[in-house]
Amino acid sequence: MEGDAPGGGEGLTLLGLWASLFVIRARIALNLKGLTYVYTEENLSDKSELLLKSNPVHKKVPVLIHDGKPVCESQIIVQYIDEAFPNVAGAPILPSDPYDRAVARFWASYVDDKLYRTWVPIFRGRTAEERVQAATQVVAVLQTLEQAFKKCSKGKPFFGGDSVGLVDVVLGGHLGWLYATEAICGVKVVDATKTPLLVAWAQRFCALDAVKGLIPDVDRLVEYNKTRRAGLGLPLLLPYVELQQ
Amino acid sequence: MEGDAPGGGEGLTLLGLWASLFVIRARIALNLKGLTYVYTEENLSDKSELLLKSNPVHKKVPVLIHDGKPVCESQIIVQYIDEAFPNVAGAPILPSDPYDRAVARFWASYVDDKLYRTWVPIFRGRTAEERVQAATQVVAVLQTLEQAFKKCSKGKPFFGGDSVGLVDVVLGGHLGWLYATEAICGVKVVDATKTPLLVAWAQRFCALDAVKGLIPDVDRLVEYNKTRRAGLGLPLLLPYVELQQ
Repeated sequence: MEGDAPGGGEGLTLLGLWASLFVIRARIALNLKGLTYVYTEENLSDKSELLLKSNPVHKKVPVLIHDGKPVCESQIIVQYIDEAFPNVAGAPILPSDPYDRAVARFWASYVDDKLYRTWVPIFRGRTAEERVQAATQVVAVLQTLEQAFKKCSKGKPFFGGDSVGLVDVVLGGHLGWLYATEAICGVKVVDATKTPLLVAWAQRFCALDAVKGLIPDVDRLVEYNKTRRAGLGLPLLLPYVELQQ
Repeated sequence: MEGDAPGGGEGLTLLGLWASLFVIRARIALNLKGLTYVYTEENLSDKSELLLKSNPVHKKVPVLIHDGKPVCESQIIVQYIDEAFPNVAGAPILPSDPYDRAVARFWASYVDDKLYRTWVPIFRGRTAEERVQAATQVVAVLQTLEQAFKKCSKGKPFFGGDSVGLVDVVLGGHLGWLYATEAICGVKVVDATKTPLLVAWAQRFCALDAVKGLIPDVDRLVEYNKTRRAGLGLPLLLPYVELQQ
């Protein structure tokens, strides 16, 4: 694929992992810009030399390699894509007004600082109670994001207004795992009775051409979580086994 | 002071705390741009209505209020100052090239993710061992930043090259506390035998007009740490008492 990209995307390679919410963000941003890229799936148990060389500090995916130069960390990659390809298809991911940019960065940062950190024990908690407690906290974080959506979108379809912005991409990357939370620990976190605007936003977001096929199915994430927990020596906790049957 | 600023800085208020490394970053950025601002010292035990209203999500300093609109989170504030005031005195804080911007954001993010998180137990660790272990890890993080300095500065005085950039501002905000670490727990972390380039950089950085007077003295930080530990119900651990006598 390399070299035949429309819109200036030649020389783009993404090192990723299908289940990683951070990788999904980078892929959505590349799609929004209409950029063609080579996607390489990494094996976290046997990381490639290219990954270790490209991200020697964190040794993590995603890494975007553009003309041989690596860019690491998902939010930095999304901003890089927006800044390095300003003249391709698709609206800018960050707004042009400095204050609007600061607000977008604030909520994008909130997703990483609060939503992701709160959610992690659902993935790798040691007890069922720990997972349920985390899921309850995730609902509270999403309720804050519901208010943020109200303010940022101003009645329009996305956090970015009429088009998808940084917060949409960053939060959107989480959707698969948020949907999977009910199967994993029995708590529905994407819940129209608690966060109706976010639930409607999530449906709109997942229906976008740039997003289709990137948010993994719940069943696949549940199986992945079981495998990862086994690999980490963690117990296979109920209720997701019950729900799967 | 409000209203008489040179260079377009009218209507700027910063809610801060003298000892906060995050607040220091914002103040350095404002100074680099030559902006005049009203500085309001907050009392963390009795936060102002303005702080609670301006940063309802985190309730933390710094908050920059520009023409009535709040900007929160130190790295977002620094970027906001750079983007909202492009035509005032001082070189841009972020480089113009998208790849160079991504690299600057990567190392700035590394300072928050690794240096700050590693350093926290020095401030509020429960045992002397915990503090010493944290200090040892801080040295390792600084050694990684030494290598980053070599690559980013390319033989010039700052991470940003000839002028101060995002990484300089973000890491520079930590310097007071890094210097104070030896007094607090007996481990010298700013050590010319281990990170000679960073030590020389720190001296250059602290000598800048935009920085002078903002990096607190070690004695004052040590006293502040004692008071905060007492407030948090933490034991007053050696060796900083010994060193102070």
